[in-house]
Amino acid sequence: MSMIKPRTLSGFMELLPGKQAQLERMMEILRKTYASYGFAALDTPAIEDAQILLAKGGGDTEKQIYRFQKGDHDLALRFDLTVPLAKYVALHYNELAFPFRRYQISKVYRGERAQRGRFREFYQADIDIIGDGKLDILNEAEIPAIIYNVFRGFGLNRFQIRVNNRKILTGFYAMQDLAEKSGDIMRTVDKLDKIGPEKVRMLLIEECQIAEAAADQILKFIAIRGTNAQVLAALEGYLGRNELFDQGVAELKAVCENLGAFGVPEENFAVDLTIARGLDYYTGTVYETTLLDHPEIGSVCSGGRYDNLAGYYTDKQLPGVGISIGLTRLFYVLDEQNLLNPALPTAPCDALVLPMGVEAAPAAALAQQLRSAGLRVQLYGENKKFKQKMAYADKLAVPFAVLLGSDELEAGKCSVKNMATGQQITVTPDEAARHILQNLSINGPIILEK
Amino acid sequence: MSMIKPRTLSGFMELLPGKQAQLERMMEILRKTYASYGFAALDTPAIEDAQILLAKGGGDTEKQIYRFQKGDHDLALRFDLTVPLAKYVALHYNELAFPFRRYQISKVYRGERAQRGRFREFYQADIDIIGDGKLDILNEAEIPAIIYNVFRGFGLNRFQIRVNNRKILTGFYAMQDLAEKSGDIMRTVDKLDKIGPEKVRMLLIEECQIAEAAADQILKFIAIRGTNAQVLAALEGYLGRNELFDQGVAELKAVCENLGAFGVPEENFAVDLTIARGLDYYTGTVYETTLLDHPEIGSVCSGGRYDNLAGYYTDKQLPGVGISIGLTRLFYVLDEQNLLNPALPTAPCDALVLPMGVEAAPAAALAQQLRSAGLRVQLYGENKKFKQKMAYADKLAVPFAVLLGSDELEAGKCSVKNMATGQQITVTPDEAARHILQNLSINGPIILEK
Repeated sequence: MSMIKPRTLSGFMELLPGKQAQLERMMEILRKTYASYGFAALDTPAIEDAQILLAKGGGDTEKQIYRFQKGDHDLALRFDLTVPLAKYVALHYNELAFPFRRYQISKVYRGERAQRGRFREFYQADIDIIGDGKLDILNEAEIPAIIYNVFRGFGLNRFQIRVNNRKILTGFYAMQDLAEKSGDIMRTVDKLDKIGPEKVRMLLIEECQIAEAAADQILKFIAIRGTNAQVLAALEGYLGRNELFDQGVAELKAVCENLGAFGVPEENFAVDLTIARGLDYYTGTVYETTLLDHPEIGSVCSGGRYDNLAGYYTDKQLPGVGISIGLTRLFYVLDEQNLLNPALPTAPCDALVLPMGVEAAPAAALAQQLRSAGLRVQLYGENKKFKQKMAYADKLAVPFAVLLGSDELEAGKCSVKNMATGQQITVTPDEAARHILQNLSINGPIILEK
Repeated sequence: MSMIKPRTLSGFMELLPGKQAQLERMMEILRKTYASYGFAALDTPAIEDAQILLAKGGGDTEKQIYRFQKGDHDLALRFDLTVPLAKYVALHYNELAFPFRRYQISKVYRGERAQRGRFREFYQADIDIIGDGKLDILNEAEIPAIIYNVFRGFGLNRFQIRVNNRKILTGFYAMQDLAEKSGDIMRTVDKLDKIGPEKVRMLLIEECQIAEAAADQILKFIAIRGTNAQVLAALEGYLGRNELFDQGVAELKAVCENLGAFGVPEENFAVDLTIARGLDYYTGTVYETTLLDHPEIGSVCSGGRYDNLAGYYTDKQLPGVGISIGLTRLFYVLDEQNLLNPALPTAPCDALVLPMGVEAAPAAALAQQLRSAGLRVQLYGENKKFKQKMAYADKLAVPFAVLLGSDELEAGKCSVKNMATGQQITVTPDEAARHILQNLSINGPIILEK
């Protein structure tokens, strides 16, 4: 048989079982948390009509998209979960109840230039709330609570949800008579963290062609810092000069004042006037989330409010708010930086049942009994020496081996070996199940703070 | 803005939220059951090098595969989960512990001719156990227990796992001096259920060019019926004439005799000598699973033992055993035939909190409190009339609405309305959580027997 060297394409994450167990755990937290806020699971096709996906078109999307013909069909792989959502909501508009809340944790595809830590296939974990014509600000106020619970679910405390409102920015630039340049300005100001205020000022003046006085006004504005109350107080000083600005401040206040009721501690939340989000379609509250001890990772959960989800597919006005977590990249970075908790078990089973010279039947029955108690149990059936069986248990990183020899069998017992400590006890199957359940370290943070 | 009519490609399943909830529930059962037997979750890329996927090549695969260029790369979407597994095991051979047990529940892609009930994108839910050089028969004996627990998990009792052994068939045909025709014969015999014994006999004689006497022998052999013990006894009569046959009978006995220990009731299991499975690579035990009241659906879970998983990628001998559930098709058929239990909730939340003229903060706090009790809770924030709020709750099929008006708020209470019965009680939030938890009908079969 002529052979082909096996390989996985670069830019495609393929994990070993132990690492996959860690990623699965994060996905489980995401599903549970999203579901606890009443989001429905959705699963749209990975392949769509290329025309549908490229309705908006332009720029990087067209270049990066995986597009191909099959028969007469012009097809493409989704490059995000928002465009398929827009299509879904437009298509099924009459069958959905609005506000429509959905989560989707699925892979998306972008044929980017290969680069370390960049993926061509990656999971996005998105939620969106879509209104029919209108959508109350309360939905925007709820989003930080969801972000908070996701990252607390991962085991983190030291993270911050940073919030701004695009209306405040757009209104502010309108006050400065810079309305038509606001897009360019926001993109420039977005770089503040990376390049610092001096360079932002220079770019504003040179590239955006803004007068020095106006540039200074902008820098003064985005330099507003302090507690949420202090930032909101500083914004008060600008009120009454632009309607959109005033509306943005009112919305930001509404988001801030309900944080406590939604269970978000003050220290995990900050109003930050420098946040704009690159995407043009955000129109209200915008969100970013940073790990306080790892600012170099950038935002790990971002999103915002938009006024019109599906304008390319329907004339219905569908405002919404949503956030997205780039799960594959987040996982990759956490792993690179050794921030994944190694104390959590990564073995595919809690207990490995090893028959030691006994028949298969009693060993199978023992495994079944342990499973009934809620354990994940593998029955080892290979005819190998004791040492090889133990080496297998070690390689799998199984927390407990359960040995069944003829002595144990006669006594109606089994021997439970804690693979980490080496400690071994001989007990009944019921006691074995209890012992293992009590000593499994399945709880603990998924992500370590250090 | 020029508009594009939204549509989903034909052959691609895209469910409404309620139906998706039912599918998610089936996936959850699959994940839990597979994990309970010590299978590790795996997630390989949907896109692979086309050369890798087509290493075996030939026939329908080449025609159906989605294949495309991106830059210099010749890419393709996986058409099953077995070929990517073979690549994975060959590629990561040194890092894996053998026997390697993995499950994968992922979408695969086949550009088949569009047809009702046929999908171009569909979930497969696979498990495989891969040995390094050898793999004990005990693994084959364990597979029926896993199938049994999956379908019991779906809520079914009336299903049957049908088992045979390819060695018995191959050995039997060798006895009849029909070894080189055994492939053709097995494919013909496989049609027995559909076309009946008379037509099978005719095809054997006319298409396979087998002598009438031999055809009669074959029909006599596959007509062996009865309890497992009776079938095994009938097979004894053929022993001693072909080594492979004898080995197959011994394996089949080993699988049968441990069923009880593995917890599989006799009535859910049958030795069936007509089962061959079309695929050429099975070499030992083969499995099919049928719903007894719905034979027209065909096998809902099939698989078997193979001797060489990854011969195209490595010279290591990697025998294995695996089964696959075509989840998307199974779900489609169950839904078509109204076999999905409508009593299980499909709403995205257990409770919908409706503020009735009160501030957002106390309503948000109430929702948060119910969530802490383990409920999935949506906070409704829209400014609508009572009737519209109730219509929304109805459209979502939410089991409970929790109303918070100023009276309730003052009394430290809330009103819980059972949307099915109309019954309403006014209680504290703690009592509300308990009441809802007690009255949620989340348990029950996913699939109905009728």
